[in-house]
Amino acid sequence: MSLVVIGTVAFDALETPFGKTDKIIGGAATYATLSASYSVKPVKMVAVVGDDFPQSDILLLEEHGVDTQGLQIKQGEKSFFWSGKYSNDLNLRETLQTELNVLADFDPVLPDSYQDCKYLMLGNLTPQIQRLVIQRLVNRPKLIVMDTMNFWMDVAMEELLTTIEMVDVLSINDEEARQLSGEYSLVKAAKKIMALGPKYLIIKKGEHGALLFCKNKIFFAPALPLEEVFDPTGAGDTFAGGFIGYLAASDDISFDNMKRAVIHASAMASFCVEKFGTERLLNLTKEEIEAREAMFSELVKVVPATTAATV
Amino acid sequence: MSLVVIGTVAFDALETPFGKTDKIIGGAATYATLSASYSVKPVKMVAVVGDDFPQSDILLLEEHGVDTQGLQIKQGEKSFFWSGKYSNDLNLRETLQTELNVLADFDPVLPDSYQDCKYLMLGNLTPQIQRLVIQRLVNRPKLIVMDTMNFWMDVAMEELLTTIEMVDVLSINDEEARQLSGEYSLVKAAKKIMALGPKYLIIKKGEHGALLFCKNKIFFAPALPLEEVFDPTGAGDTFAGGFIGYLAASDDISFDNMKRAVIHASAMASFCVEKFGTERLLNLTKEEIEAREAMFSELVKVVPATTAATV
Repeated sequence: MSLVVIGTVAFDALETPFGKTDKIIGGAATYATLSASYSVKPVKMVAVVGDDFPQSDILLLEEHGVDTQGLQIKQGEKSFFWSGKYSNDLNLRETLQTELNVLADFDPVLPDSYQDCKYLMLGNLTPQIQRLVIQRLVNRPKLIVMDTMNFWMDVAMEELLTTIEMVDVLSINDEEARQLSGEYSLVKAAKKIMALGPKYLIIKKGEHGALLFCKNKIFFAPALPLEEVFDPTGAGDTFAGGFIGYLAASDDISFDNMKRAVIHASAMASFCVEKFGTERLLNLTKEEIEAREAMFSELVKVVPATTAATV
Repeated sequence: MSLVVIGTVAFDALETPFGKTDKIIGGAATYATLSASYSVKPVKMVAVVGDDFPQSDILLLEEHGVDTQGLQIKQGEKSFFWSGKYSNDLNLRETLQTELNVLADFDPVLPDSYQDCKYLMLGNLTPQIQRLVIQRLVNRPKLIVMDTMNFWMDVAMEELLTTIEMVDVLSINDEEARQLSGEYSLVKAAKKIMALGPKYLIIKKGEHGALLFCKNKIFFAPALPLEEVFDPTGAGDTFAGGFIGYLAASDDISFDNMKRAVIHASAMASFCVEKFGTERLLNLTKEEIEAREAMFSELVKVVPATTAATV
C-alpha cells in the first residue's frame, strides 16, 4: 500500500561516550524511510537537501527501495546540518549546532506518482510544512501518523495544535506528552492529547518501552534490555518508520495490528541504537528482524499458573 | 509453606502533593507482611517497636494473618520514626527526619516456632541484622529474598556484600543496581550483581516496571499505567512481600513461577500507591487482586499476525 514519508534528510555530526563521527547522513526521513523499507517498497520520500549531499547517499536510499522523486536537490544551497553530544548515560543530548540551510524555506513538492498515498508519515518538521503535505494530497490518506518534538511546543504551539488535529496517530516521547498536556500521569496526558484530535497516541519512553493508547485501551511494549546502546540518534524516527511501514504492508489499522506494529517498531529501534547513525539499518535481514521481534514476546511471556496462589 | 519476614515496623509521617499524614504505621516489614498475607497465612514477622506503638495496630496485623510472636516491644523506648516529603511528580523523595530509636540496638529474636522457615524475606535493614537472622535459623531456608537500599551501599558496603553473597534473590531499584555494579546498562549490572552471589536479581523500575534476571534469562513485567499515584511509600516492600508470598504459597521456585510472582508483586504494589500508607493493603479481595493481575497480562498481550509483514 502506497506509503509517503516526509521529514528531514540531513548531515549529522555525533559525539557519544563511545566515539564521534564527522558529518554522516541523518535526518528523520532518512531513518524512517530506511526502517519502513524493511516492510514495504517503495517508500516515497518527501524532503530537501543541498547540492553538497552526496549522490552516493541518495543511491543508497534508492537501493533500499526509497523513491526519491520527492527529494528536492537545491543547487547552490547547503543541506540541513545538526551536531549533538550525548551525556555519559546517553539519556541527555546537547545540541551543539543547528544550521537550517535548505530547510529554512522548504516547500514540499509531491510528485503526481505520490497522489496514491494511503499511508502518510509526517516525520519531525515544522508543523506548517507537515500540514502542507496533507493539504497537497488530493485524497486524504487512510492513515496519517505524525511525529513531532518539544521544540515545536516551545516555538509554534498554535501551529502544532492545528496540525495535530488533522492526524490519526501522534507519536511523541513521555516528556513531550507531559509538556503538551500539562499532566504528569501519562494516562491523563493521553486522554487530553487524544481529545485534541488523534484517535491513537504513541508515547515513546526510550529504554522504558512504548505505550499505545486508543480510547480506554492501553498497550505496552517493553524496550529490549540492551547490553550496549551505542548511539540513540534516529531511534524515534526508526520506530515511527517501522510502525507505519508495518501497517502499510499489512494494510490493517485495527488496534490488534497496531500492537504488532509497535513491537515491530521497537525491534527496528533496538537495531538502530547498536551502531552509529544509520549503519545498522543498512543491512538487516528478515531473519534478524523476526528473531528480534520474538525476543520482545519472550521478554514478557508468562505461562499461567495451574492453581491460584491467592488465599 | 512457612514464611518469615524481617524488617522495620515504624511510624511514618508523609507529605505528598495530595496531602500529608500525621504519624501512621509504616515500615518495610509492615508493608511486606500485609502484602504477603494475601498469599499465605501466617506470615511470621521479626521486628521491633517501642511501647508507643498502638496495640490496635498490632491487632490489625494479626487480623491479617501476621504472626507477631517475633515482634519485640521494648518498654520505655520509642518506635523507629521516619518522615519524608515527595516532589510534585512523586519521583523524588526527601527524608525530613529519621529517628532510629529502638532500631539502634535491634537484636532480632526468632521464636522456636519460626525455625520451620522455608521462605525468608529480609526486608530493608542493616545488612548485619539481615545476616544475623539467616545465622539464627538452624536450617537454611529454601529461598532467601533480600531487599536493600542505596543507604547501605553508602555506609556499609562491605557488610552489604557479605550478606548479599548469602541470599538467593536480591531485590533493588535501577539506581541501586547501577550504584552496586558501577554499570549503567542494567543487563551488564545484572551480570555483575549475580556474580556477587544471588542466583536471581529483581530490578524495580517504579513506574517503568520490573526486570527479573536469572543467568542469561530476562523477564520484564510492566507497571500498570495509573491515572493517579497517591503515595509511593512502601511500594517496593509491598512488591517484595507479594513476590515471596506468592512463591511460598505455591512452593515453586522455578523461573516460570518467579515470573508469575513478579506479576503478582507488581499488582500488589499498584494497589499500595493508590492510597496513603498501608490503607489500600488492608482490605483487598481475591477478586480485586486477580482482576489487577489480568490487567498486567492484557497490557502486553499481542495476537500473532497470520501473515508476515516484513519483505
